[in-house]
Amino acid sequence: MAVDATTRQRVLDAVDAGFDAQLDFTAGMVRFDSTRGNEAAMQEFMAAALRERGYDVDHWKIEVDDIRDMRGFAPVEFVDYAQAYNVVGTLTPRQASGRSLIINGHIDVVPPCDAARWTTPPFEPRIEGGRMYGRGAGDMKSGLAAGIYAIEALKAAGFRPAAPVYLQSVVEEECTGNGALACIQRGYKADGALVPEPFGPSIMRAEVGLMWLCLDIQGDPQHASAAFQNVGANALEKAIHIWPFLKRLETEWNARKADHPVYRDHPHPIRVNLGKLSGGDWVSSVPATARMEVRLGVLEGEDLAQIRQEILDRVAEACAADPYLRDHPPKATFHGFMADGYVLEPGSEIEAAMGRAHEAVFGSPVTSTISSAVTDARYFGLYQDTPSIVYGAVCGQPHGIDEYVELDSLKQATRAYALFIADWCGLEPL
Amino acid sequence: MAVDATTRQRVLDAVDAGFDAQLDFTAGMVRFDSTRGNEAAMQEFMAAALRERGYDVDHWKIEVDDIRDMRGFAPVEFVDYAQAYNVVGTLTPRQASGRSLIINGHIDVVPPCDAARWTTPPFEPRIEGGRMYGRGAGDMKSGLAAGIYAIEALKAAGFRPAAPVYLQSVVEEECTGNGALACIQRGYKADGALVPEPFGPSIMRAEVGLMWLCLDIQGDPQHASAAFQNVGANALEKAIHIWPFLKRLETEWNARKADHPVYRDHPHPIRVNLGKLSGGDWVSSVPATARMEVRLGVLEGEDLAQIRQEILDRVAEACAADPYLRDHPPKATFHGFMADGYVLEPGSEIEAAMGRAHEAVFGSPVTSTISSAVTDARYFGLYQDTPSIVYGAVCGQPHGIDEYVELDSLKQATRAYALFIADWCGLEPL
Repeated sequence: MAVDATTRQRVLDAVDAGFDAQLDFTAGMVRFDSTRGNEAAMQEFMAAALRERGYDVDHWKIEVDDIRDMRGFAPVEFVDYAQAYNVVGTLTPRQASGRSLIINGHIDVVPPCDAARWTTPPFEPRIEGGRMYGRGAGDMKSGLAAGIYAIEALKAAGFRPAAPVYLQSVVEEECTGNGALACIQRGYKADGALVPEPFGPSIMRAEVGLMWLCLDIQGDPQHASAAFQNVGANALEKAIHIWPFLKRLETEWNARKADHPVYRDHPHPIRVNLGKLSGGDWVSSVPATARMEVRLGVLEGEDLAQIRQEILDRVAEACAADPYLRDHPPKATFHGFMADGYVLEPGSEIEAAMGRAHEAVFGSPVTSTISSAVTDARYFGLYQDTPSIVYGAVCGQPHGIDEYVELDSLKQATRAYALFIADWCGLEPL
Repeated sequence: MAVDATTRQRVLDAVDAGFDAQLDFTAGMVRFDSTRGNEAAMQEFMAAALRERGYDVDHWKIEVDDIRDMRGFAPVEFVDYAQAYNVVGTLTPRQASGRSLIINGHIDVVPPCDAARWTTPPFEPRIEGGRMYGRGAGDMKSGLAAGIYAIEALKAAGFRPAAPVYLQSVVEEECTGNGALACIQRGYKADGALVPEPFGPSIMRAEVGLMWLCLDIQGDPQHASAAFQNVGANALEKAIHIWPFLKRLETEWNARKADHPVYRDHPHPIRVNLGKLSGGDWVSSVPATARMEVRLGVLEGEDLAQIRQEILDRVAEACAADPYLRDHPPKATFHGFMADGYVLEPGSEIEAAMGRAHEAVFGSPVTSTISSAVTDARYFGLYQDTPSIVYGAVCGQPHGIDEYVELDSLKQATRAYALFIADWCGLEPL
C-alpha cells in the first residue's frame, strides 16, 4: 500500500536532505578499485557501513564448493575466490507486518578499459555537470548506495520498514553471478527483490542469458623466418580464423527473437563480443599460444546445454575449415557466466508497488524495458520464485571510459526506492 | 694461410679434448634467462669467464644516446636499457703479424613461447640423443661458447692468435642489433668478423633486412550489450581488420625477389609475421585498446625509408576501408629492428679462409646459404666494411619449443672455427 501524502512528503524530503551524504558515501565506494580479485577491502567498508547504520551484518567468504552444485552456478576458472566476500545487512522490524525485501547490489566493477583515456582517474570520483564520474559510479555503486540511503531516508523521517530487509552487497556480478547465488545458498530469501541497477527509471521486463567462452589455441611456434620451410602455425592467425565463425552466431541467434514473446520487440538483443585476445611472446617468433575470450548473449528461454553445444559445434566447424586446427583444435572452457535469461512476468504485486512509487515521483506511469545485458535479478526470479525489480538511475558509458551516473536521475531513483520500500514493506515507527 | 698438418691435428685434438668443458660452459650460459631486460647477470658471468681466460675485458652499459645517430641504429621503444650491457674481451698478441678478428655472438634469447610445452624447462639445459636442449642452446649461446673454446683449443695446443681478437658478447640481437652497433661505437674494428650463429656448416651469403612494427589501436569501449544502440568500436576487431592488409606485403615483397641477384634463388625470403596481439581487459567490455606487433622481412637492397612508407601506406589503406578507423587510425611505431639486408660478396679472403677450415674438417668444399633471417653480421659488413662470416652448428627449433643444438655439428663447427682463426689471425707460441 502506498503511504499517505504526509508521510510521502516527509520521506521525499528526507531523501533530498540526505542526498549530499549519499553522494559522499557513493564517492567513498567508487574510490575502491573493486575489480575482480580485489573486492575484500571494499566489503570490509560495506560491512562497517551497514553495521554503523544498525544492520545485523553477515560477512562471509564465498566457497566455491558450497555453491558448485546449485542451479545458476557459473564456472570459476583461472581465478580463485581469495577475495570473494559477500556482505548482507539485515534490518528486522519489531513486528513484521509487511513483505520482506532483498535489496541486492554488486560492488565488483569491470576494469577501466584504458585508464589513460579517462578525463580523471577511474577510481577518483568526480562530480561535474550534474554527473558523478568514476568506474562503478553508475554500474552500480550508486545504485547500491541509493538502496541504503532510501532506508536512511525512511529512518530520518521517523520510520523503518515493517518487514525484514536484506541489504546484499555482493561480488561476482560482472563475471558469474556467484555472489548473488551465494546469498541464496546462505539462506536468504524474501517476498520480493530490488536490484538497483542503473538501467533508468523503468522496470526491466526481461534480461538475456549469457555465457563466457575461452578458447586456448596452441600454435606450432618457430622462428618467424622459417615459413619457407613450410613449418609453423601461428596461434594468433588461427584465433583470427575462428572468430568470424563465432560472430556469425550473433546474427543467427538474433534471428530467433522473431518467435520470442518479449524479445521480438528488441532491435538486437544478442551480442557476441570478442572481449579479450592475446597471444605471442616475441615479435620475431611465430606465436605458440593465443587465448580468445568471448561473451555470447543468449536469448531468454534457450536451453543452456544446447547453446553450449551450438558454440562447440561452431568452433568445430571453424577447425574443420583449417588443416592445422583440424588436428589441433583449441581447448574450449566456459569460464564465467552461465546465465539463463529472465522475464519478470507482468502483473506482480511488486511491480505494482514500484509503479506507484515511480508515479508518485515522476507524475507519470512507469514504462518497462527489455535488456540485452544481464543482472543478478535472475537469481531471485528464477531460483527462488521471488519477483525481482530492476529499476534505477541513468548511467552513461558503463564498462566504457568516463563512466558516470546522472545525479538528478539518481535522486529520483532514490526517492522512488524509498517510497517503494515504504509501500512494499510497510512502515513502523522507529 | 692454413696451418701445417701437425699443428692442425694438435688443434683439432685440443678441440675434441676440450669439448666436454665447452658443453659445461655452454650449459652454464643456457641456465641464464637472458631474455630482453634480463641480460645483466649473464654478462657478469661472461665478463668473468673471459677475464679468467686471459682476455682484457671491457664491460659497459649501452647508452641509447651514444648510438642514436649512428647508421644501423634501431628504435628503442617501450623498454629501457637498464640491463643492456655489452662485454668485449680482447686478446692481444705479443707481436701482431696476422689479421685481426671480431668474434661476435649474442647472449640475449627470445622468450620460451610456451614453457609448459617444453619437455624440460627452457632454462635447464638437457643433453640427450646428441643434442643439447634449452632456450638459446642453439641461438646462439653454443655458438658464442664455440668461439671461446676454439681459442681455448689453440691455447691448449700451445698457441694463441697472432693478431688481436675481439670476443664480443652482445645483447639486443633479437630485437634491434644495437648491441653490435654499440661495439662499433665503442671503437672496435677488425679485419674480419665471425658471427658463430647456428646456421649450419655453410657460409651465409646473404641475410634479409627486417623491421618491427607496432600498431596501437584505440577502440570505443562500451558495455558489450550496447551494440544495438549502434555505439562502440572493438579495438581487437579493428586489429583483425588491418592484419590481412599487412600480410599481403609478404606476397608482394617476395615477388620482387625475381630481380634480386641473390634472393631470386630463395623460395620465400620475406616473411611478415603477426608476432604479438593483445587487447581487451574484460570479456563483457568492448575492447578499448589493441596492440598488434608485426615482424616484416625486407629484401636486401631495399631502401628502408621507402619500405616504412609502404608499410604506413598499407595501414592507411586498411583504415580507409573501415568507417571507424578512417577517423581513428592506429598509432604506428617502429619499435625494434630497422635492419638493412647484407650480402657477403663472394671472393673475400676471409671466406677463403673459412672455406679452407671447413674443408679440413669436413673433407668437402663449403657451400653457401641465403637466409630469411637477420644476424649481427650486417653491422660489420655494412658499416665497417669488414667482411663477416656467419657459419656454425645446426640448431633445431630456434624461437620454438625444445630448441636444441646438434652436438656433433657443434664440435665440427668448433674445429672449423679453431682452424679458421689459426689461418686468419696466424698463430704465435703461447
